[in-house]
Amino acid sequence: MSARPIFVVAGIGNGTGTGAASARLFAKSGYRVALVARNAEHLSALAAEINSAGGEAAAFPVPDYAYQTVLGVFDTIGAHAWPSAGAGEVRAALWNASGGAFKRFFDVTEADLAGSVEGNVTAPFAFARQAITAFRRNALDARGRRGTLLFTGATASVRGNVTTSSFAAGKHALRALSQSLAKEFGQENIHVAHAIIDGGILTDRSVSYRPAEFKTNEDIRLNPDSIAQAYLYLTNQDRSSWTWELDLRPAHEKW
Amino acid sequence: MSARPIFVVAGIGNGTGTGAASARLFAKSGYRVALVARNAEHLSALAAEINSAGGEAAAFPVPDYAYQTVLGVFDTIGAHAWPSAGAGEVRAALWNASGGAFKRFFDVTEADLAGSVEGNVTAPFAFARQAITAFRRNALDARGRRGTLLFTGATASVRGNVTTSSFAAGKHALRALSQSLAKEFGQENIHVAHAIIDGGILTDRSVSYRPAEFKTNEDIRLNPDSIAQAYLYLTNQDRSSWTWELDLRPAHEKW
Amino acid sequence: MSARPIFVVAGIGNGTGTGAASARLFAKSGYRVALVARNAEHLSALAAEINSAGGEAAAFPVPDYAYQTVLGVFDTIGAHAWPSAGAGEVRAALWNASGGAFKRFFDVTEADLAGSVEGNVTAPFAFARQAITAFRRNALDARGRRGTLLFTGATASVRGNVTTSSFAAGKHALRALSQSLAKEFGQENIHVAHAIIDGGILTDRSVSYRPAEFKTNEDIRLNPDSIAQAYLYLTNQDRSSWTWELDLRPAHEKW
Amino acid sequence: MSARPIFVVAGIGNGTGTGAASARLFAKSGYRVALVARNAEHLSALAAEINSAGGEAAAFPVPDYAYQTVLGVFDTIGAHAWPSAGAGEVRAALWNASGGAFKRFFDVTEADLAGSVEGNVTAPFAFARQAITAFRRNALDARGRRGTLLFTGATASVRGNVTTSSFAAGKHALRALSQSLAKEFGQENIHVAHAIIDGGILTDRSVSYRPAEFKTNEDIRLNPDSIAQAYLYLTNQDRSSWTWELDLRPAHEKW
Repeated sequence: MSARPIFVVAGIGNGTGTGAASARLFAKSGYRVALVARNAEHLSALAAEINSAGGEAAAFPVPDYAYQTVLGVFDTIGAHAWPSAGAGEVRAALWNASGGAFKRFFDVTEADLAGSVEGNVTAPFAFARQAITAFRRNALDARGRRGTLLFTGATASVRGNVTTSSFAAGKHALRALSQSLAKEFGQENIHVAHAIIDGGILTDRSVSYRPAEFKTNEDIRLNPDSIAQAYLYLTNQDRSSWTWELDLRPAHEKW
Repeated sequence: MSARPIFVVAGIGNGTGTGAASARLFAKSGYRVALVARNAEHLSALAAEINSAGGEAAAFPVPDYAYQTVLGVFDTIGAHAWPSAGAGEVRAALWNASGGAFKRFFDVTEADLAGSVEGNVTAPFAFARQAITAFRRNALDARGRRGTLLFTGATASVRGNVTTSSFAAGKHALRALSQSLAKEFGQENIHVAHAIIDGGILTDRSVSYRPAEFKTNEDIRLNPDSIAQAYLYLTNQDRSSWTWELDLRPAHEKW
Repeated sequence: MSARPIFVVAGIGNGTGTGAASARLFAKSGYRVALVARNAEHLSALAAEINSAGGEAAAFPVPDYAYQTVLGVFDTIGAHAWPSAGAGEVRAALWNASGGAFKRFFDVTEADLAGSVEGNVTAPFAFARQAITAFRRNALDARGRRGTLLFTGATASVRGNVTTSSFAAGKHALRALSQSLAKEFGQENIHVAHAIIDGGILTDRSVSYRPAEFKTNEDIRLNPDSIAQAYLYLTNQDRSSWTWELDLRPAHEKW
Repeated sequence: MSARPIFVVAGIGNGTGTGAASARLFAKSGYRVALVARNAEHLSALAAEINSAGGEAAAFPVPDYAYQTVLGVFDTIGAHAWPSAGAGEVRAALWNASGGAFKRFFDVTEADLAGSVEGNVTAPFAFARQAITAFRRNALDARGRRGTLLFTGATASVRGNVTTSSFAAGKHALRALSQSLAKEFGQENIHVAHAIIDGGILTDRSVSYRPAEFKTNEDIRLNPDSIAQAYLYLTNQDRSSWTWELDLRPAHEKW
C-alpha cells in the first residue's frame, strides 16, 4: 500500500479559519498535513488536534515569509518522518497566507505595502516553485493528476477599492500568478486553482468585531469548512475538467 | 420519507453530452429527472436508459424553445405522475440548450442570430422564471437551499471572437442573466450558478469531426461526466459558500 | 475636394442625450449626419437644428428596429442627396439605441425582453452589417482607417444586477458583438469600439426624475457632449493604437 | 498669467518609447516636463531635445526605484527653478516604468521578481502618493480637475500567461492600485487612469529584435506618439466623463 500523500498548507491564523479547516478536512480525507505558518503555538495546537483525531499532521513554523525561508521549509517537510509508513508524496498545497491592510491610501505605510507584497507575491512565488517541483516527481494518479496547487483569493483579487489599495495590489498579483501557473503547468498535469472568497469568513477573530448575527446567521458569512470542501472538490477533479477559478460567497451576500 | 426531488434538464442533444451526463448522474444521486429537448426520440431513449438503470426519468419533448413553450413545459412536468411515491419538488434545473453558429460575421444569417437569441436568451428567461417559481415553494433543505439553477456557458460567454459573433452575443447574455438571478435570488436561498466550459466536450458528434486523439487523450477534451460532477458539487454547496461561476477545461487546454 | 464623410447615428431619444450630442459634434467636425430613430418628430427637430447651425443633417425615421428595417435604412441613407457637393462615404456609425427594462426579474415581461433583444442584439447586428459593408468600400484615410463603428454600452454591459436581468442580457450581448467585430474587422482597418457609460447621463428625461443636484452638479452625471468627445477621439485614433473599450463616469461616481 | 503646469513622467527608457513620446507631446501642449528615470544620460538627452524644440524639460535621475527614493524625487521636482516665470503646479503624472521578466516560471529568479515588484508595485505606490499630494494643493481647473495620474499597463495587466508570471503579477498589482486610487480620489476631482497596451510598441529596442515589417507596417505595432495622444486625451476629459481604463492595440493585432 502506498504512503499517504502530503498536503502542505501555509497560513493557519489562530486555527479557526480557512487554512485550519482545510487541514482538518484533508487530514480526514487521507492526507498527511504539513502546517506552515508564523505562529508556532497555533501550529502545534492544530497539529495536536488533528493527530489526536486520528489524522497525521506536523507543524513547520517559519520566522517570516521571505523568499528563501519559504523555499527552505519544503526541504524540512521533505525530510520529515511521518508516523505512518512510507515517504509520502506532496500531492496538494494551499497558499492561504496573505498580507496588506484595509486602510485609505494615505494611511498605507511602506510596511503595510511590504507586508502585502511578501504575503501575496514573494512568498507564494517561492511556495509555488517548491510545490510544483515536488509535484513534478509524482506519477499521474487515477484522475490524471500530479498535484494540486490552491490559492486563496478575495474580493480584492478582482476589484480595487478605496480601502484596499495595498491588499488588492497583492491579491491581484497572486491571482495573476495562479493564472500563469495554471496555463504553464496544466500541460504537465499539475492543477492550479484560485478561489475568490467574496464575503466575510466565520473565524474567532471575525466574530469578535462583527454583529452577533454574523455568528448565528449561516446565510451571511462563509463557513471555513465549506471553503475547505471547495478545495477538496477541486483537488479531486479529473484531468478532463479542471477549474482555474471559482468564487464563493454566502447566500445572502450583496455583490 | 419524502419523495425524490426533481431535476429538470433542458438540452439533451443526442444523449452523449453534458445534459445527458447530468441527467444520469443526478438520477443516480437520488433525483427524478425531467428531460426537456426538441428531439423526442433522443429524449425517450435517454429516459428509457435511465429508468432501466434503476433511475427515474421522464421525457418532455418541446416543439421549439419559444418563450411560451418553455413556460408551458414546467406545467407538464408539475403534473407528471412519477413511478415512485409522492409529488417531488423541483430542486434543481439545468439550462444546457444553446444556439448560434460558428461563422464569420458576414455569414451569420438572421436565422442564425434568432437561433442564438432563442436558445441563449428568450428560452432561458422563461426556464429561469418557472424553475425559480418552483423553488420558491420549497422549504430550506439541510444545506439551507431551496433550489439550484445551473447554466452551461462557454468560452464565448466571456470573449467574443471572429467566428462567434452570434454565439458569443447569446452566451454573454445568458451569463448576464445568471449573474442577475444569482444576486436577486440568493437572498431567497436559491442558488444560481454558471459554468464556463472552455474547451471541446467529448460527444458522439465532436468525435466525428475531430482528430482521433480527441477521443483517446483524456487531457485534451472535457468528459461530460466530469462536467456533471461539477454541477452536482454546486448543487450540494451549503448556503455559506456558493459559487456563481467556475470554469472547466482539460488539463492540456491552451488558453 | 472630396465630399464630406457621413456619420450614421441610431438612437436619438428626444434630442438631449448621447446620440444627439454626438450628431451635433460630428456635424461641427465636418461630417454629414444621418439620423436614425423611431420618433420622426424628434429626428426632424434635431436635423433642422444642426442644419440651421451650418451643419448637414438628414432624418431617417424607422417604424421599428427589426432586422430587415435596419438593413433597409442604410439603402435610404446611401441614396440621399446631400445639399453640399458629392456622394459622401459612410465613415462613422454609432449604435446608441437600446432597450430593456429596469425591473426585478419577475416583473420582466416577454415584451420587455423582446425589446432588449431587438434594441441590443438584433438591430445592432443589422446595423453593423450595413455599416461595415459601407466601410469596406472606402479607401484608407490619412490615419489608416476605413471607418469607425461605435457602440454605447452601460454598467450593465459588464455586470448583471437585481433590476437589470433583461437590460444586462442585451447589453452583454452587444458588448460581445462589438468585441467579435473589433477582432474580425480590425484586420480590414475598420475600427470597432465600445463605451461603458457607468453613471447617469444628463438629459431632459433624467433631470425630470432625479434630485435637483443632478442637473447642477457637474461631478455627478455624464454630460452627453463629453461622451460625444470620447466618440470623436476614438474616431480619430490612428491605426497603430486603437481602443476597443473605455469606460466613462463622473468624477464623483461611486463604483 | 499663470505658470505652466508640470507633467511628471517616470520611465523614459532610451528616449524612443511611450514615456519620452508623452514628454514631448505634453511639452508641446504647454506643460513643463519633469523627467524621472534611472539612466541619467538618456534623461539629459531627452531634456535637451525638448528644450531646444522650445519646450521646458528637466531631468531628475534616480539611482533606483526604492520607495523612499521615489518619494524624494518629488521634493527635488518641487524645488526646481524652471526657466519660464512662476512656480508651476504638478497637474499630470505618468508612471511608465515597469519591471519583470518574460521567462517561463522556473527561470524567474528572486531578483526578477523583486524587479517586477519594485517597478510595478512599490515605486508606483510612492509615486502616486506624491503626485496626489501635489494635486491636492491645486484648485479645480476649467474642466473640473485637480490633476491626472496615468499608469501604463500591458496585456499582462489582465491576463497571466506562461512566460509572464512575474511581469503579470506586477502589472495586475499596478492595475489594482490604479482602480483603488480612481475610486478614492475621483471624489476629490483627481483623475486616475490606466491604459492597457496590448501589442508591441515601436521603439529602438523593439525594432532591433523584430522582423523588418514591425518597423514599416503601421498596422502591426503601436506608435508611442499615438499612446501619448491617448494620455493627453485622458488628461483633457472634463469632470463629467472620466475614463479609468482603455485598451490600445494596432489595427491588425490578433487578440
